[in-house]
Amino acid sequence: MSKLVIPRKTVYRLSLYYRALQRLRGNRVETVSSAALSKAAGVKPTQLRKDLAYFGHFGTRGLGYNVPALSAKLTDVLGTTQLQPVILVGAGHLGSALLRYPGFAKEGFEVIAAFDADVEAKRRGIGVPVLPMGKMAEVVRDRHVKMAILAVPAVVAQEVVNELVAAGVLAILNFAPLMLQVPDNVVVNSVDLAIELENLSYFIQ
Amino acid sequence: MSKLVIPRKTVYRLSLYYRALQRLRGNRVETVSSAALSKAAGVKPTQLRKDLAYFGHFGTRGLGYNVPALSAKLTDVLGTTQLQPVILVGAGHLGSALLRYPGFAKEGFEVIAAFDADVEAKRRGIGVPVLPMGKMAEVVRDRHVKMAILAVPAVVAQEVVNELVAAGVLAILNFAPLMLQVPDNVVVNSVDLAIELENLSYFIQ
Repeated sequence: MSKLVIPRKTVYRLSLYYRALQRLRGNRVETVSSAALSKAAGVKPTQLRKDLAYFGHFGTRGLGYNVPALSAKLTDVLGTTQLQPVILVGAGHLGSALLRYPGFAKEGFEVIAAFDADVEAKRRGIGVPVLPMGKMAEVVRDRHVKMAILAVPAVVAQEVVNELVAAGVLAILNFAPLMLQVPDNVVVNSVDLAIELENLSYFIQ
Repeated sequence: MSKLVIPRKTVYRLSLYYRALQRLRGNRVETVSSAALSKAAGVKPTQLRKDLAYFGHFGTRGLGYNVPALSAKLTDVLGTTQLQPVILVGAGHLGSALLRYPGFAKEGFEVIAAFDADVEAKRRGIGVPVLPMGKMAEVVRDRHVKMAILAVPAVVAQEVVNELVAAGVLAILNFAPLMLQVPDNVVVNSVDLAIELENLSYFIQ
């Protein structure tokens, strides 16, 4: 229940802290001050302390945070302790590039299958089976898939989302440039590349 | 000067309003109520009115907004009236998928060239010349490029950014999973795909 009060931006920053901690672990650092950790994550120390306070009491005054312990806690909070099965829908140019993106596996997400209306796309799924759309609901149900990456054209996106939600998907990373309608229990994060450029365009005038 | 006080989220929402207005124009709608426009953009009517108020007085009480006039105003505010030249650095899997992404041109951004350390990447730039990294600064200066899309590996990203900034780039859309250090006059928007998934993962637990 208490989860609902945690700001979405805080959850984003937890990922930044986790990455900074991973780099520290790579350098065999055991303890880190809140000043050093916040700097590594690109946030203010007060923000770091406020964000972590949502999840309990961390760190020892004068010593800082224990790097492996805080890493483990963040993995637990973010729900990435276990490998999450993810499907990708739409294996066009962007979708097939995403299939080759090494960052997902590194962060605990396994793209178990891709789906596309075009059988030609099968050739583009390197190491990941690309299946016809008709198999999507079945795979979602059988493999208990809760997360999907959507890289289909805008005109079919809502229809695909309806099918994903009906099959049990609860979270969608959307690359189609439109607003998706989903029930309240489903979360959508949209990445609209043109909007990102448009936003930059504003700031350089 | 007044630009600095406009929240970044407001600028993002201007892009959503602009897209909604484009759809209305496509349907030959001349006037739209603030309730209908805000619904089409997926925001609350109070938010729409507050956002637009930063840029002047729009709409007529009881009638709503003039669709072509508000579209033109938003294009002007967002700085997308003229085609913006953009370069892409890093023509690997993600970078070459971005080169094929039709959304950039549609929204007024022309990717004039891509740069890559690997000459093999030349084959992947469909319709866009892929040039060696050594040519990057020259093209930025000669073509007055202010915006760059960065899709290089994290280990070289900061070095590339330093070179882009020295050549005159003021805005970077960054896909490399790290915090970039830039001077105060340079804006960076980062898209970290793994962080987006991690964020979703939190919400479906």
